[in-house]
Amino acid sequence: MFHKILIANRGEIALRIIRACKELGIKTVAVHSDVDSESLHVKLADESICIGPASSLESYLNIQAIISAAEVTDADAIHPGYGFLAENAEFAEICANCGITFIGPSPENMRLMGDKITARQTVTKAGVPILPGTKDAVENIEQAKEIAADIGYPVIIKATAGGGGRGMKIVHSPASLPNAFAAARSEAQAGFGNPEVYMEKYCVDPRHVEVQILADKHGNVIHLGERDCSIQRRHQKLLEEAPCPVLSPELRQKMGECAVSAAKAVGYSSVGTMEFLLDADHNFYFMEMNTRVQVEHPVTEMVTGVDIIREQIRSAAGLKLRYKQSDIVISGHSIECRINAEHPFKFTPSPGKIDGYHPPGGLGVRVDSAVYDQYTVLPHYDSMVAKLIVHADNRQEAVSRMERALGEYIVGGIRTTIMLHQRIMGNKEFREGNFDTSFLEKLVL
Amino acid sequence: MFHKILIANRGEIALRIIRACKELGIKTVAVHSDVDSESLHVKLADESICIGPASSLESYLNIQAIISAAEVTDADAIHPGYGFLAENAEFAEICANCGITFIGPSPENMRLMGDKITARQTVTKAGVPILPGTKDAVENIEQAKEIAADIGYPVIIKATAGGGGRGMKIVHSPASLPNAFAAARSEAQAGFGNPEVYMEKYCVDPRHVEVQILADKHGNVIHLGERDCSIQRRHQKLLEEAPCPVLSPELRQKMGECAVSAAKAVGYSSVGTMEFLLDADHNFYFMEMNTRVQVEHPVTEMVTGVDIIREQIRSAAGLKLRYKQSDIVISGHSIECRINAEHPFKFTPSPGKIDGYHPPGGLGVRVDSAVYDQYTVLPHYDSMVAKLIVHADNRQEAVSRMERALGEYIVGGIRTTIMLHQRIMGNKEFREGNFDTSFLEKLVL
Repeated sequence: MFHKILIANRGEIALRIIRACKELGIKTVAVHSDVDSESLHVKLADESICIGPASSLESYLNIQAIISAAEVTDADAIHPGYGFLAENAEFAEICANCGITFIGPSPENMRLMGDKITARQTVTKAGVPILPGTKDAVENIEQAKEIAADIGYPVIIKATAGGGGRGMKIVHSPASLPNAFAAARSEAQAGFGNPEVYMEKYCVDPRHVEVQILADKHGNVIHLGERDCSIQRRHQKLLEEAPCPVLSPELRQKMGECAVSAAKAVGYSSVGTMEFLLDADHNFYFMEMNTRVQVEHPVTEMVTGVDIIREQIRSAAGLKLRYKQSDIVISGHSIECRINAEHPFKFTPSPGKIDGYHPPGGLGVRVDSAVYDQYTVLPHYDSMVAKLIVHADNRQEAVSRMERALGEYIVGGIRTTIMLHQRIMGNKEFREGNFDTSFLEKLVL
Repeated sequence: MFHKILIANRGEIALRIIRACKELGIKTVAVHSDVDSESLHVKLADESICIGPASSLESYLNIQAIISAAEVTDADAIHPGYGFLAENAEFAEICANCGITFIGPSPENMRLMGDKITARQTVTKAGVPILPGTKDAVENIEQAKEIAADIGYPVIIKATAGGGGRGMKIVHSPASLPNAFAAARSEAQAGFGNPEVYMEKYCVDPRHVEVQILADKHGNVIHLGERDCSIQRRHQKLLEEAPCPVLSPELRQKMGECAVSAAKAVGYSSVGTMEFLLDADHNFYFMEMNTRVQVEHPVTEMVTGVDIIREQIRSAAGLKLRYKQSDIVISGHSIECRINAEHPFKFTPSPGKIDGYHPPGGLGVRVDSAVYDQYTVLPHYDSMVAKLIVHADNRQEAVSRMERALGEYIVGGIRTTIMLHQRIMGNKEFREGNFDTSFLEKLVL
């Protein structure tokens, strides 16, 4: 097992990893930008090192500074968390070259799945359904017109190197294709340094359902069931739950098996997530694979009892999975609300000093957060200040528990999305499990 | 189901009950003494009523004021929590006479089990083992001498109406019997208004193991496994865990069945606990029954997934248990540390204003507490400020998680037992599960 892990991240995920390390008896090193020294992840790590100024590019994305910090502190592994360098294959390679274990999959796996076209090709070979679309990058507008005519409108244009909803264009008719195609390419160039795009049939108002994968370096791969992450705003998830309220046991098993065979096909060896679209007829299509731990991993932990970060660290250390597929039982229901420092309905950022902080507690309530009273939420980074997670016997009771917990949560001095989540909990369609990715757009706030 | 419940208690247990009520959609009424108006249970209840001055006798034990509060607010049930009026059969009777449901067992059951002699007689008939001792109250010193000679020294003298360790005297030889007998009787008179005492064989350094019972008004009784509460100071529990680290599955089943048959024999119809002593040879003996919810109920909730307060309320409303015995599976391990406002090693009270408060969070951590930053811990009541509960896959991981969570817990401005619990977690014998009720006395602090 590792002696000391450097966490190349900040906020709640850095704290989540520190907690797992403490419980495993592993020393921790926090890195931070100069404005981030008061963060809880810095206070709770065994050591901390400032790696640069506020700008992420010069600190949390500064590979050289992070590698130096690991060498200075004699850390034998680096956990990248999510975001920042978590899906950067070059960083994983540099770690390996420096004799530091990157806690994640191989650089090859990251590259394969990071390129959306090769990812589509790979999972198709493993028998995973994908939406009709291009096998390669679309070179020019003539080719784009042909393909769109072939697969039928609406279509969606996506950046090959993209992710997280950026650079996507939905096209409903041939007339709007040229502008959308040009815009997608230039956004892809600006956002990811690569103008390549591909095209898919656009699935109207699907559910976003994803399968959690757990794999080791000995060829063992299992899945931990699915999460429904359909409650999104502009492709950013706001609320996630497990299990998906509309999945039959048969479909759950089928999606799980698909995810496992795709992971096995590429020799995947860490935690990861296969994201699918589920259409109204309950057909599912591979969307992309996240080769890292996700923000919403706690809901899966709550319903399976598996500590995903612990397993990820163990797996990176070369240990075998502690679970067989048959050990995994989905028990009860879990919901996670992302509490962001934003206006609850306008979604405008609301950084600033927290004045008065009291998290909810009691049975079935979990809070993952790195903020505290008088902590200043910084404008430089992600606006998420906490994840409020509940677990209960069934979905109805989980909704009641979430309502109760949201009502107890005090975050003074800044605006948060707590009130938005209260509206969602009170919504009839949500309570009935009857929603898709268009839910939030249609919600009258 | 009830429309509105008045909670005749304060602090964390009042908050625990309010949370369960909110999740069940039941309105709540908090009662409080005049010094207690800033308590979290008052802030989070739908309504609150001041029922008297700081002295418990004039507020939380003031039956007339509490009944009036229930009538004024039109509450249809009263939850007594633990302590105060929770085991007062007269109070339960008055509630019934006023048309208010007392959330607990029948007054008859409370009287039967509240009198330690009739309790012993009752469980014996149901086949539950008891320590050799008197069948009736011991009238005088001559009789005491005879009995002690008969059952053999050491013996323990206990108040018939007692509980919680008060008024107990351990006698190792005939020479010390007369003084101990007289002292026990006068302490019983002073503490419980009844001088009656009885005698039992004294079990040297046993473990304290108790079985949680769940019963409804339709004759259904199940048990939720056991808790080990051997870590005590002067018969006051400080740390509890589930399951008991040394119980075999066979012994667990046998103790559970004994507890269920005793409860069935008396027609018990609420939550309750059968407390047993477990000797070094793993013989177990009935000690007493608590006819109420206990401080340590959360560890059982964590390993069974059963919301005990919710079931208690449902049962009082006449609903059937939602679980059969075969539904109950013990999963993983849970530990609870009672965080008291006391010097961690001298145990002297440390009331006062909390200056800086931040509870731990993350996977497998639960905090039940009614305190907050700048709240003043009052000298008038119980010193417990929080219950820190963890759940993990196994005992070793639960201990690591508790160490991690204790290390994160910030309670400034007052002294607490957090450091004591850190010492216990670090103790080799404790980590090996090798301890009994004498553990804390022997611990070098």
